[in-house]
Amino acid sequence: MVKISKARTKFIKSLQLKKYRQLEQTFLVEGEKSVLETLNSDFIIQELYASLDFITRHEAALTDRPFVEVSASDLNAISSLKSNRDALALVTMKPNQSIQLDSGLNIAVDNLNDPGNFGTIIRIADWYGAKGIIASDTTAELYNPKVISASKGSFTRVPVEYCNLQEKLNRSSLPVFAADMRGEEVHSITFPNDLVLLMGNESHGISRELSEIVSQTITIPRYGGAESLNVGVATAVICDNIRRG
Amino acid sequence: MVKISKARTKFIKSLQLKKYRQLEQTFLVEGEKSVLETLNSDFIIQELYASLDFITRHEAALTDRPFVEVSASDLNAISSLKSNRDALALVTMKPNQSIQLDSGLNIAVDNLNDPGNFGTIIRIADWYGAKGIIASDTTAELYNPKVISASKGSFTRVPVEYCNLQEKLNRSSLPVFAADMRGEEVHSITFPNDLVLLMGNESHGISRELSEIVSQTITIPRYGGAESLNVGVATAVICDNIRRG
Repeated sequence: MVKISKARTKFIKSLQLKKYRQLEQTFLVEGEKSVLETLNSDFIIQELYASLDFITRHEAALTDRPFVEVSASDLNAISSLKSNRDALALVTMKPNQSIQLDSGLNIAVDNLNDPGNFGTIIRIADWYGAKGIIASDTTAELYNPKVISASKGSFTRVPVEYCNLQEKLNRSSLPVFAADMRGEEVHSITFPNDLVLLMGNESHGISRELSEIVSQTITIPRYGGAESLNVGVATAVICDNIRRG
Repeated sequence: MVKISKARTKFIKSLQLKKYRQLEQTFLVEGEKSVLETLNSDFIIQELYASLDFITRHEAALTDRPFVEVSASDLNAISSLKSNRDALALVTMKPNQSIQLDSGLNIAVDNLNDPGNFGTIIRIADWYGAKGIIASDTTAELYNPKVISASKGSFTRVPVEYCNLQEKLNRSSLPVFAADMRGEEVHSITFPNDLVLLMGNESHGISRELSEIVSQTITIPRYGGAESLNVGVATAVICDNIRRG
């Protein structure tokens, strides 16, 4: 078992901040499930810290993979999670992805600020087999530890492209379906196979510039008293309606 | 503007703990939306602390309601939220509700530990017009500040009954549909109007004692790589399928 030095602890914790992630082009993956998914992906792991518990449980996944055994309490100290007694990896960022908006289910998010919501949407995109997510530059950063953590490993499978949504959507011929409180009921729409689902900001919806590009606004019918659904929940319900066909 | 005394601050913060909530039969409602919904409900507000901003914006809602004006920084100091510059109320708990399992959409949650997930499900139950939620005694406490906050005010409209689920479900003649990874695809099921939707624990699913009471297990079809959906998200997708008919 290795004791993590103060300098190393400081460096690892600095990666909780965007500034240092950008500088190092490195991000943190924390917790059992997320680290396992990363080991199973084409992401490059620079350093892997793991507890004896984790190492014992996941011997096969660690074959031929260099790692440093550390105490569970050391792990907890370097982690941004409330509790992490399993593993933490320093992983190399990928360059911004490029998504071909020509077929399949594509998700676009406009100005989605909350990292937890963005991570949840990446997980939902993965479940519903979306080709990828295009995100406005104002959306939460993909490599924020809260995004990575909420995505439950799905960040390894779902490509994300940050871009100017207006330009990107304008260049595509796919129809754009946008969630909106005043749209047509999602239960009565027949969705095409190839489309973009556009989700807006938690409080302000879809920005005015984008509304011109929208082919059809859609809404989830309400049967009770709540004012709204969480944007992640709404994304899942709409994807389910799209896939149900 | 009133300065909150140290003793009062200590008392209010003590209500973040279950022990003191139980002792005082009092819980905290925090933030703009949740406090407004509580003002609009039949819950008894014992004390209401509000910033000048909140008071100015919601003059009508505060007519004939006693409140104490405090600084935004004082509010933040007594609140469990990351940021609360609006309002906080001390509210009297209601006795455990009693839900008649005889008609409509009813939701049952078995051993749902995470308060954020439970609050999200209360909000979803409200959106989809569920009659109420029955919860195993092992489920997160309704008056936990994280449950209240995640419910976005829906706790004022959705009755929750804590009970022995097995006994309660055994006494009802409603069919029980349980979410399960090995169930029938939710898209191909015709749901009756009157039913119980049973959601299990985040990691362990539905407990063995309950599986005998289940009429039908159901699953949300997966089209991609994610291993699972969050339990709140899954509840919404299934409710949408139920209501879609």
